[in-house]
Amino acid sequence: MNNYKYEDIKIGMIEQFNVNLTENMVDDFCKITGDINPLHIDLAYAKSKGFKEKVVYGMLTSSFLSTLAGVYLPGKYSLIHEVDILYKKPVFISDSPLTIRGEVVEKNDLFKQFTIKFDILNKENKKVVRGTMKVGVLDE
Amino acid sequence: MNNYKYEDIKIGMIEQFNVNLTENMVDDFCKITGDINPLHIDLAYAKSKGFKEKVVYGMLTSSFLSTLAGVYLPGKYSLIHEVDILYKKPVFISDSPLTIRGEVVEKNDLFKQFTIKFDILNKENKKVVRGTMKVGVLDE
Repeated sequence: MNNYKYEDIKIGMIEQFNVNLTENMVDDFCKITGDINPLHIDLAYAKSKGFKEKVVYGMLTSSFLSTLAGVYLPGKYSLIHEVDILYKKPVFISDSPLTIRGEVVEKNDLFKQFTIKFDILNKENKKVVRGTMKVGVLDE
Repeated sequence: MNNYKYEDIKIGMIEQFNVNLTENMVDDFCKITGDINPLHIDLAYAKSKGFKEKVVYGMLTSSFLSTLAGVYLPGKYSLIHEVDILYKKPVFISDSPLTIRGEVVEKNDLFKQFTIKFDILNKENKKVVRGTMKVGVLDE
């Protein structure tokens, strides 16, 4: 885990990591949230809506933004303040490995907060999710 | 599960439900995401940062937005396009039950998409998260 302090965070810093989506993750996410929507758990229904596979919950794909801030950028002293997420393409398990990538684009010294521009890419390097996140640094 | 079609969605419609956060949910979210940040899993560390309890992952609290769209508003024909989340207060397990509440505030006929303004409230009815979500309706 990284443990960058606020002063260590520089505009242009990039962190990224890969994630393999699994059926177990989808099952666990369903259990946590109670979101039993068939698009995510019923292949026949997903196909009837024109998708080649079950669609991975958008909020499950987004969950890895927690890891991006909490483990990588800034790591230990992270507290997420704000997240704006735009879904560009449906995500399937077969899109794995996903790449979760964040770049520091702004700093706010008054609030010890910085802005990450993030992209989530599928295994073909196509952008499936993008957005920004404001993260505070609890380094005192 | 609701199964509102696009034409059934009216500005001003409200759906809400309650969630009890548990240690198991936090453990499962940690396992899914690999976010091992101590603020969420180490009480002593959370206290050292001035919090009374471990802080529930912001993205875990946000996961219930999946349920808000996928089960309630519009339910079955949901596909989330966009989510903007603002964290107002740290969330603790003892804040349960949370209320997840969404109201339709805009419709876009061209994209068969509507906008939900959402709030997440703790058991004292204080707003801990707020934001907006754009949701498509796959009703054909």
